[in-house]
Amino acid sequence: MAIPKDARIQLSPEDIPKRWYNIAADLPNLQPMIHPVTKEPVKEEDFKAIFCDDIIKQELSKERYIDIPEEVRDALISLNRPSPLQRAYRLEKYLKTPAKIYFKREDMSPLGSHKGNTALAQAYYNANAGIHTLTTETGAGQWGTALAMVSNLFDIKTTVFMVKGSFMAKPLRKTIINTYGATVYASPSEYTDFGRKVLKEHPETSGSLGIAISEACEMAAKDEHTCYALGSVMNHVMLHQTVIGEETLQQFGIGEIEPDYMIACVGGGSNFAGFTFPFLREKMAGKHKDCEIIAVEPKAAPSLTKGEFKYDYGDTAGMTPLMMMYSLGSQYIPPAIHAGGLRYHGMSPLVSAAFDQHKISAVSYDQTDTFAAGITFARTEGIIPAPESCHALKCAIDKAIECKEKNEAKTIVFNLSGHGLLDLYGYEQALEGTLPKSGSD
Amino acid sequence: MAIPKDARIQLSPEDIPKRWYNIAADLPNLQPMIHPVTKEPVKEEDFKAIFCDDIIKQELSKERYIDIPEEVRDALISLNRPSPLQRAYRLEKYLKTPAKIYFKREDMSPLGSHKGNTALAQAYYNANAGIHTLTTETGAGQWGTALAMVSNLFDIKTTVFMVKGSFMAKPLRKTIINTYGATVYASPSEYTDFGRKVLKEHPETSGSLGIAISEACEMAAKDEHTCYALGSVMNHVMLHQTVIGEETLQQFGIGEIEPDYMIACVGGGSNFAGFTFPFLREKMAGKHKDCEIIAVEPKAAPSLTKGEFKYDYGDTAGMTPLMMMYSLGSQYIPPAIHAGGLRYHGMSPLVSAAFDQHKISAVSYDQTDTFAAGITFARTEGIIPAPESCHALKCAIDKAIECKEKNEAKTIVFNLSGHGLLDLYGYEQALEGTLPKSGSD
Repeated sequence: MAIPKDARIQLSPEDIPKRWYNIAADLPNLQPMIHPVTKEPVKEEDFKAIFCDDIIKQELSKERYIDIPEEVRDALISLNRPSPLQRAYRLEKYLKTPAKIYFKREDMSPLGSHKGNTALAQAYYNANAGIHTLTTETGAGQWGTALAMVSNLFDIKTTVFMVKGSFMAKPLRKTIINTYGATVYASPSEYTDFGRKVLKEHPETSGSLGIAISEACEMAAKDEHTCYALGSVMNHVMLHQTVIGEETLQQFGIGEIEPDYMIACVGGGSNFAGFTFPFLREKMAGKHKDCEIIAVEPKAAPSLTKGEFKYDYGDTAGMTPLMMMYSLGSQYIPPAIHAGGLRYHGMSPLVSAAFDQHKISAVSYDQTDTFAAGITFARTEGIIPAPESCHALKCAIDKAIECKEKNEAKTIVFNLSGHGLLDLYGYEQALEGTLPKSGSD
Repeated sequence: MAIPKDARIQLSPEDIPKRWYNIAADLPNLQPMIHPVTKEPVKEEDFKAIFCDDIIKQELSKERYIDIPEEVRDALISLNRPSPLQRAYRLEKYLKTPAKIYFKREDMSPLGSHKGNTALAQAYYNANAGIHTLTTETGAGQWGTALAMVSNLFDIKTTVFMVKGSFMAKPLRKTIINTYGATVYASPSEYTDFGRKVLKEHPETSGSLGIAISEACEMAAKDEHTCYALGSVMNHVMLHQTVIGEETLQQFGIGEIEPDYMIACVGGGSNFAGFTFPFLREKMAGKHKDCEIIAVEPKAAPSLTKGEFKYDYGDTAGMTPLMMMYSLGSQYIPPAIHAGGLRYHGMSPLVSAAFDQHKISAVSYDQTDTFAAGITFARTEGIIPAPESCHALKCAIDKAIECKEKNEAKTIVFNLSGHGLLDLYGYEQALEGTLPKSGSD
């Protein structure tokens, strides 16, 4: 038995993509963001209180490609980019499926997830603009960890508002964020007007991403050398994540891989967009015609499968622009699930538009099913996936079982957006049979 | 600024070494193990109660090279081998040192440490021999996690005796081991005669590696289809870990790297041996004459720097053979430190012999200093090192500072034996300033 060539398809640091792909150039009928007060389409200057100029330009850009600065490419090495594309031979064997299953390894970042890809681009541009502090929100903790780590690379400080429920349930995240030298507050906090207001009205609340976003934006707006950094949803975040998908296309070429399914989980949409948009560009240009691109969401926050395509706020306080997106309503607070990174009321406007235009499909799962998939993956491939990534995995396994039933040797590729070593409590519950079901059919 | 060629030197799956290096062929005056009852040199049959034949052969072998089975090479891919050799540019810049600092990335295994390298070789040989269960001990949890994971790859079951102090302090380790499908008991346990005896005499004990080894050996000896697997100390474990050092030699060739210091931490000695022995072979053959090879131990268990070179037991109960090694005494229970993997009374006989013959040197550090080094590394290189690996790192940083003082552009290479994402409590204490000093000068 020789080592199969596609067991792991890896690239070299020089293969780190030289430009990001901006799908806003190729998706028709994109609706502009609307100013929350004037109700007019937002202009560059509307963002200046919270974003630096380069980020604003990228957010509003219709350019198809945007060059990745060499300093950012260099820093991507610290995130272990390019990440391997790996074949799940042992999982295939366990499932007795004729399907081929590949997965992209965003778990190999020292941060444990894909979040660093945009964190360091944002830190770079802000540092260049003379910003000394970035504020942000975090749900599960992945994004706050990412920004805390990369801000060191560009000599910038970070303040993280972490959804209180996660903050209490995951004290290790606080330790990691502090180890990287950043400050982290449980949200709602006493450090902002909006936080104090929420605490007064709902002193027992476990918080939400929407509330934490409001707090981070408020703090950024109040200091001219402080900006806000967002971990998902907005166009520039999707843009920065496309390094995942551009690498994947290179790896498809090397491995002569023609996927039938491209699968990723969605919360705000960034790992999905990063993984699939470069591929979708090729598909829109006439290639890969038969490939289905699937967004997998939790039943607890099913914005694509149960939400409405409408203008809505990105946060709870109504401070952000209104975005045309699939949403469960900006006041919706999803039930507690372990996949905190998917616990968001809305969906990236770019992902939403792609879904509305039937360029991608969507499916939702309960966490009891996704953790079971995660345990299977751990016992076959040896990797414990993040609760979020278990959603993509569960869908990939379902497709592989379908292939078995139909005896079809299809090719399934999913994005393993992160590992679960910092989110083990869900696995403990799953093993003990005490994992609560979340969401309904 | 272009990406520097030595930012990350990576190899391909095909470059996974084809044979292990057995330093027993090259070290003179190695003393045989002595049977604990007969006091005669141990023979193959003496091990049959706890080890399978292939492992026994490797343990006693004087062959310089032993072929790595293709199944094992294939499985090493699942541990993300070959692992990269990376340059710590950001740490160098922070230290303002003219030294070059490289580190080998054993943290990139999904297990978070180097332990899988021998775990899967042992699981492979035992599965081939018809063994259905492996028993083992674990201190910090890295080794138990590794064996639990790889046993799935070869359809074998694992029972882990985890030192009670660690078991209580690190509940997440139990979750991981269970997620991989293995059983884990706090040691001393009620499941063995020796465990019951210890519990009766010392009901409040937090256990030790020596006690846990005794329990695992006892359970293996009582069932003919159960064998014991050891995570360090013995010759076959050192052998299996040499994939680290063989890869490193390939990477030195590619990067044209000539090290002045090779540094790794030591508990039982396996990551040190794996990283340095292939290099030491070259050094003994006349190359790399000026390179110093440094073993770094905790002041809490300073077997090389404070121990005695003598015959001693590997465990507390006196069930193992007597080994000629540096030891603090088999009854010595090291004080609690976060680097549980270094908390052992003895030292690999091969590492001990190399030290006795002045082929390597040794140094010890207190954990307050090693965690400070870990925090520096996290804030520069973005990786949170395992508490064990912080020992090697601390020594590398000290050498880099020396280089700064002397204005010498030396090359320092250390082994990052694992990441610290599962051992964050020590970092929390370090950040809060409540980390206890351990050991004395």
